[in-house]
Amino acid sequence: MFEPCDLFVDVAHALGLPELTPGSVWLTGAGPGDPGLLTLHALNALAQADVVVHDALISTDILRLAPPSARLENVGKRAGGQVRAQRDISSRLVALAQAGHRVVRLKGGDPFVFGRGSDEALALAGAGIPFRIVPGITAGIGGLAYAGIPVTSRDVNHAVTFVTGHMAGGGLPDGVDWAAVARGSPVVVIYMGLKHIGEIADRLVGAGRSPSEPVAIVSDATLPSQSVIETTLETAAADAAKARPNAPAIFVIGQAVRLRAGLDWLTAALSGRVIAADPSGQCVRIAAE
Amino acid sequence: MFEPCDLFVDVAHALGLPELTPGSVWLTGAGPGDPGLLTLHALNALAQADVVVHDALISTDILRLAPPSARLENVGKRAGGQVRAQRDISSRLVALAQAGHRVVRLKGGDPFVFGRGSDEALALAGAGIPFRIVPGITAGIGGLAYAGIPVTSRDVNHAVTFVTGHMAGGGLPDGVDWAAVARGSPVVVIYMGLKHIGEIADRLVGAGRSPSEPVAIVSDATLPSQSVIETTLETAAADAAKARPNAPAIFVIGQAVRLRAGLDWLTAALSGRVIAADPSGQCVRIAAE
Repeated sequence: MFEPCDLFVDVAHALGLPELTPGSVWLTGAGPGDPGLLTLHALNALAQADVVVHDALISTDILRLAPPSARLENVGKRAGGQVRAQRDISSRLVALAQAGHRVVRLKGGDPFVFGRGSDEALALAGAGIPFRIVPGITAGIGGLAYAGIPVTSRDVNHAVTFVTGHMAGGGLPDGVDWAAVARGSPVVVIYMGLKHIGEIADRLVGAGRSPSEPVAIVSDATLPSQSVIETTLETAAADAAKARPNAPAIFVIGQAVRLRAGLDWLTAALSGRVIAADPSGQCVRIAAE
Repeated sequence: MFEPCDLFVDVAHALGLPELTPGSVWLTGAGPGDPGLLTLHALNALAQADVVVHDALISTDILRLAPPSARLENVGKRAGGQVRAQRDISSRLVALAQAGHRVVRLKGGDPFVFGRGSDEALALAGAGIPFRIVPGITAGIGGLAYAGIPVTSRDVNHAVTFVTGHMAGGGLPDGVDWAAVARGSPVVVIYMGLKHIGEIADRLVGAGRSPSEPVAIVSDATLPSQSVIETTLETAAADAAKARPNAPAIFVIGQAVRLRAGLDWLTAALSGRVIAADPSGQCVRIAAE
């Protein structure tokens, strides 16, 4: 039986996709989880890899798209029970390239969205290793779309802010002006911030956001195990503590969450029904011009 | 000779990608331009389409991935010299689905990022048409990555804001609190705002951003014709007027632009050279831990 990567070789050729040359590294976004959200460049990268250096959370459904001969290296921060320093990962990429391998560094989501990808790219540049950036679908956009939540829509927002809720040390980032974020963006998407959801909600309410403003917590976004908790700024911390969603989760604050009532296409598809549109009446109002 | 879509059928089958059933619509992001940035779901959508209803700016390299038998309908806002109302596009999607076609609505970038995709999805939901959202790579992340600019990096920012600089009426959106955006996000990415770049820069400087803060204007992102203008808040309007970049362009404000000196992998690859890392010394500082 042919592997998907063998089948893809002809597609890649017909599309003129580039060659991953020995001694180079492609920093590649794997998207939020659904293998169908890999880009053609990402599959083309995997199909040519000698070594795939991957985050802990990349699913086996995606890793199996590399050739059986490729070596898989899990460099998740807690791989093997120990915390792996970012410096070690960058050094490993340089060493593998210098040894002449075709290296794919596979990261969840997009390599330049809160993923330390720029550190790795700068390390490669500093060592004179040729590299390419392969963007990926980020969970804060594509993951929310699978939950039926549009990060922008005409009547809700002309701006959206993505914030990381997690620092290397484990705390809430101290450089974020939460009051300005609260005022600047009707829709705010928080990555890796579940541990601090109560504190973040408090800061947003303190800056004037309504305690009743809707919040959705999405975990395992785009995977069959995807779960969505709809809550509010006021109740988010308690609901998260009760439901204990899997990490990593993202959460989104804003009226965009209310559109889910009309846009939850994935639940509809999985249950074999057509969406019972618009129980709140709000979606029709927004769709009408 | 086999078309790429014929070749892809076996890949789609091996991956278990879903079937686009007659009478349904997939709202599909085409990414910023490079066909390699299509997702597997997007190619799977095109390969099954009876009708592709597309924006004006979708390249022929992407449209040719639909089967030769598929009908292509350009519904770009200025297609045929007339302004097409959003309502007309939504009605057309509903009518095509009701006629039993397999419909792909192909939009630049991501369907839920400043693209009226939620309007179209709500119209489909309202009409009881089964639909799916296929997220795409958005220019504000993936397009900037092709210009060597990471939208986030550890030492630059823990928050990034995306703003549309264009309203349906042609003006600057009036609901944006530019002062809050200026304070809330070290990196700000503006979509479709080139016409108002001077006014946006003035508002950001008025809110305390430095006139010398770096700005990059990226047009035709990810395409062979990609161009990047590096400028500052102070000089952005004059430089844009002089260089007249193609629309649509995105621009980004923030120190992230300075990392381009070490991360401009595309120019390096096209010129066959390895990046001469870090002329400014800044990148090494950031890469070092």
